[in-house]
Amino acid sequence: MHEIHVGEDLREKNEEIAKENREMLEGNNVFAINIMSAPGAGKTSLLVRTLPELSKKYRVGVVEGDLQTSRDAERIAELGIKVYQIETGGVCHLDASMVHSALHQLDLSSLDILFFENVGNLVCPAEFDLGEDKRVMLLSITEGDDKPKKYPLMFIESELLILNKMDLLEFVDFDVDKAIADARDLNPSLSVIKLSCKTGEGLEEWIKWIEESLKKKKE
Amino acid sequence: MHEIHVGEDLREKNEEIAKENREMLEGNNVFAINIMSAPGAGKTSLLVRTLPELSKKYRVGVVEGDLQTSRDAERIAELGIKVYQIETGGVCHLDASMVHSALHQLDLSSLDILFFENVGNLVCPAEFDLGEDKRVMLLSITEGDDKPKKYPLMFIESELLILNKMDLLEFVDFDVDKAIADARDLNPSLSVIKLSCKTGEGLEEWIKWIEESLKKKKE
Repeated sequence: MHEIHVGEDLREKNEEIAKENREMLEGNNVFAINIMSAPGAGKTSLLVRTLPELSKKYRVGVVEGDLQTSRDAERIAELGIKVYQIETGGVCHLDASMVHSALHQLDLSSLDILFFENVGNLVCPAEFDLGEDKRVMLLSITEGDDKPKKYPLMFIESELLILNKMDLLEFVDFDVDKAIADARDLNPSLSVIKLSCKTGEGLEEWIKWIEESLKKKKE
Repeated sequence: MHEIHVGEDLREKNEEIAKENREMLEGNNVFAINIMSAPGAGKTSLLVRTLPELSKKYRVGVVEGDLQTSRDAERIAELGIKVYQIETGGVCHLDASMVHSALHQLDLSSLDILFFENVGNLVCPAEFDLGEDKRVMLLSITEGDDKPKKYPLMFIESELLILNKMDLLEFVDFDVDKAIADARDLNPSLSVIKLSCKTGEGLEEWIKWIEESLKKKKE
């Protein structure tokens, strides 16, 4: 909605703060991944499967964005992972300023990898740079294969698309090849991983993507 | 996001135009239903199942909201139903002013029932009165039973909750009773219909709900 109602000044302000966030993260050698999707596509479930694996080798943390309630943050905290909760109070996305406050509260020197779990929304989160290194989006295959054409910006802004809930493929009408082709029409360099938190399909590939991205950054 | 970035004046302006829309609809005896949900919850598929049934007895039309692309509108038009397409151009919800333009383009005197299919978003559409008679929300059970607590406003603002994709119930973790209880904690008078566009479960009940709502309005 920002194109119409929200002025250029707000955008510029967000860019400025995102730059500060990036400097804080760089200064502490923290690799940050912004995870975006529609509501219920499985962001928290993915983190719950990912964090225990990663924490065998890395010090990991999560900044958790929700309109209200802290139940996602609680699911993460139960794993013994550091989590900072942002309640946006009705705001439909994270912005750089919300994340900035979180970065000041977290002990960044004690982290290697930090996830920003965005608010469930396929539109606005894609418009706000948070200062992250990588943007990853989840598309649950239950949402339909028409989503790249209908909600293009997030596909354009992401570096990795995770097609989630692959265990349900036989029960829904979802053309995997078409969805990937449409997404790559928008963003030719988009990486794609097919994943299921239930069966574990794709989890190894996803962990490997994170580790290789981290390694490339450090080179 | 409106609570923070968007001023009271925008809200008031929306209310004014929504009032005008309501007067235009009333003046032409058109019953309007605003349909909201997250992306991919099945709004268009529901309309595709609903419109042929309704059009046996009523003159029906659709105002179709999308960020971009007209593919949903095409799916409706293929049924021989009058459809007016609004491309919001990146805006994440319909507002009263967009619908106002549509109402001026449509021949309202030739309609009995008009659907507004909102942009797929579980947050912002709930904040904008369009001048409709009824607000209906879809929650796909693949999105998870935690949604009422996490995205409360739409549950509060709706009169009917359709739990959609019930055909997938055995393959996902979704506690139907819990979701309904949580939704009714927020909105005690909320009606609920369990539905599947695939099996047809609930469609008759949904058509009945529309017809009874229309009848009550005319009394």
